[in-house]
Amino acid sequence: MAEEFVVTPWDVKGEIDYNRLIERFGTRPLEENLLERLRTQAGDLHPFLTRDIFYSHRDLDWILDEYEGGNPFYLYTGRGPSGEVHVGHLMPWVLSKWMQDTLGATLYFQLTDDEKFLFRGFDTLGESHHVGVENALDIIALGFDPAKTKIFFDSDLIRWMYPLVLQVARRITFSTVKAVFGFTASNNIGEIFYTSIQTVPAFMESAVQGRSVPCLIPCGIDQDPHFRITRDVAPGLGYPKPALIHNKLMPSLKGMGAKMSASDPSSAIFVTDTAETARRSIMNAVTGGGATVEEHRRNGGKPEVCPIFHHYAYFFEMDDEHLQEVENTCRNGDRLCGECKEELAEKVLAFLEKHQARREEARDRLDDFLLKDGDLPELESA
Amino acid sequence: MAEEFVVTPWDVKGEIDYNRLIERFGTRPLEENLLERLRTQAGDLHPFLTRDIFYSHRDLDWILDEYEGGNPFYLYTGRGPSGEVHVGHLMPWVLSKWMQDTLGATLYFQLTDDEKFLFRGFDTLGESHHVGVENALDIIALGFDPAKTKIFFDSDLIRWMYPLVLQVARRITFSTVKAVFGFTASNNIGEIFYTSIQTVPAFMESAVQGRSVPCLIPCGIDQDPHFRITRDVAPGLGYPKPALIHNKLMPSLKGMGAKMSASDPSSAIFVTDTAETARRSIMNAVTGGGATVEEHRRNGGKPEVCPIFHHYAYFFEMDDEHLQEVENTCRNGDRLCGECKEELAEKVLAFLEKHQARREEARDRLDDFLLKDGDLPELESA
Repeated sequence: MAEEFVVTPWDVKGEIDYNRLIERFGTRPLEENLLERLRTQAGDLHPFLTRDIFYSHRDLDWILDEYEGGNPFYLYTGRGPSGEVHVGHLMPWVLSKWMQDTLGATLYFQLTDDEKFLFRGFDTLGESHHVGVENALDIIALGFDPAKTKIFFDSDLIRWMYPLVLQVARRITFSTVKAVFGFTASNNIGEIFYTSIQTVPAFMESAVQGRSVPCLIPCGIDQDPHFRITRDVAPGLGYPKPALIHNKLMPSLKGMGAKMSASDPSSAIFVTDTAETARRSIMNAVTGGGATVEEHRRNGGKPEVCPIFHHYAYFFEMDDEHLQEVENTCRNGDRLCGECKEELAEKVLAFLEKHQARREEARDRLDDFLLKDGDLPELESA
Repeated sequence: MAEEFVVTPWDVKGEIDYNRLIERFGTRPLEENLLERLRTQAGDLHPFLTRDIFYSHRDLDWILDEYEGGNPFYLYTGRGPSGEVHVGHLMPWVLSKWMQDTLGATLYFQLTDDEKFLFRGFDTLGESHHVGVENALDIIALGFDPAKTKIFFDSDLIRWMYPLVLQVARRITFSTVKAVFGFTASNNIGEIFYTSIQTVPAFMESAVQGRSVPCLIPCGIDQDPHFRITRDVAPGLGYPKPALIHNKLMPSLKGMGAKMSASDPSSAIFVTDTAETARRSIMNAVTGGGATVEEHRRNGGKPEVCPIFHHYAYFFEMDDEHLQEVENTCRNGDRLCGECKEELAEKVLAFLEKHQARREEARDRLDDFLLKDGDLPELESA
């Protein structure tokens, strides 16, 4: 039986049993028939989908119904700018990019500087905003189309969002956030209020267009609780419930049950790591290999509990055939952990070099992507 | 012994024992020596001050220390735009006007459209904003100097205020708002968050000028709980605690323990009442007179429990000598309630005619007073 684990937007503890999480959260597994419908529309399937990394959803069938019927959806995802971005953060962004490319979806990307100020140790909102600008470079570096991508900070768009934020807030009680997030009377009133800010982008395009525009939210399964609230509130506001597609979380390099955290730089590959740092993080990582070379040669490794293998599968090896080979040679003991880490390090370093060049190029293009106060039409009816 | 009574920013019940309220809230009575210091600076004292209508304070001595030392204060007061303004609402505004005239104070006037949307039955924030525009006319009609008066809606200034709002919110827990306002787990998360919005204008001028500018808040004693929180939070943010000067609440025309409310048009004189409506409200008012004319002639009336007398004393008769005569002739039974109401009605109708003309003139001058997003310098350090 799996260990007890905790998954909330602000806390992930223990080794996650993802199937139990589907039951606990009341989401649905991403089944074959849905993937096939998606393949038909997109012309292909991203490996994140075929590999069961994006594995859970809410109402993706409805999104496909609408799309097939000529009513395309928009995407909403985001980032809490608390520090450097690691590859685990990129997963929903990469899927969003794929959906933008294949299905033409517009993306609203929310930088929750307010959230990170309220929940973290920043002295000022400006500090969190500053981190967010750096994070925005990482988003742009993934190659999004500026004509279809609107990145915004909560603090920049708050005036525009405020009527909708209040509509949402009025429909949520303390009892609800207590039940959904485990808040107590010691939480600050900003934390308590915050979920109403994360709800609004799920209605933004509908509010802008003045009609129901379906919204699909690719996100880590840990963010689902926010959007359970969003979905409860939506109908009362006359907006459709947003659909979700959830990914499993990239495990820490320190072990499957450990936490990827900026406070432990070697727990993850951060996209701004130097080659040296990234290599060291990989070389020091926990693996699913045997205790000794002899034992490993005899019994093989266990990729299912290996953070290194997850880094291949979840991000750095999108070639299915080679991934299969990595898995097979691990299981049969041919592939030693040191070799495997060397190979991953090469891939990681190549990615970092390319990404870091692109994120520097992105610095001059920020204004093409950033949505500011005054850019959206005023909400007359709110 | 006085009945049990409740006074919070959103609920006033029972007959208020104002001295007990000073103890309950921990404020200080407005004593003679302070009034004399104020008289020295202002050259005079407004009747609201000499009549013990503004009767309680926090740190007014400090405001005077600073003023005498060459560091003048600014004023902050406001209005929750839930409906029509009644004369009870005008009392802190009239005192503010007097302080602007005599002491040169700049006024920040907050229209809390967000609050009224969250706590009242408006369908949209826009509805509350619309009411607020009408209320702003009533403020301007009092004759404030546009060069020294900044009226703003929370919804218009939220982007500018947001960094400060979040700084405040992070320092207040649910336990605190529960204790101060009596909130429960059934309150909505907007209501819970809201007090942080009402706190920020107490620091606004300091934030704008980048130095500590003393702030004095004239307000009904019912608003004090908000500012107790403000005063707790201020030092941690590097701002001075705002001072307060509190007025007693104008009693309802329906009786000293009843509620002035827009839902009962005859409970108060609303500044937009027609002459006919105002006259009817006065004629139907409860008084402190005897049960019959005979009894009244014999025993006299009780102005201290008479809403009509309070309307004289608290607003419509600023001539002390005549007020004394009204009181004396009531007590000795010479003045009958019907006559007394007739005289008040004349004063009220004269006021309404003048006020209503001025508020229509104010319509063209709104832009001279309204502070909008972009009007204040950006808060770089927040």
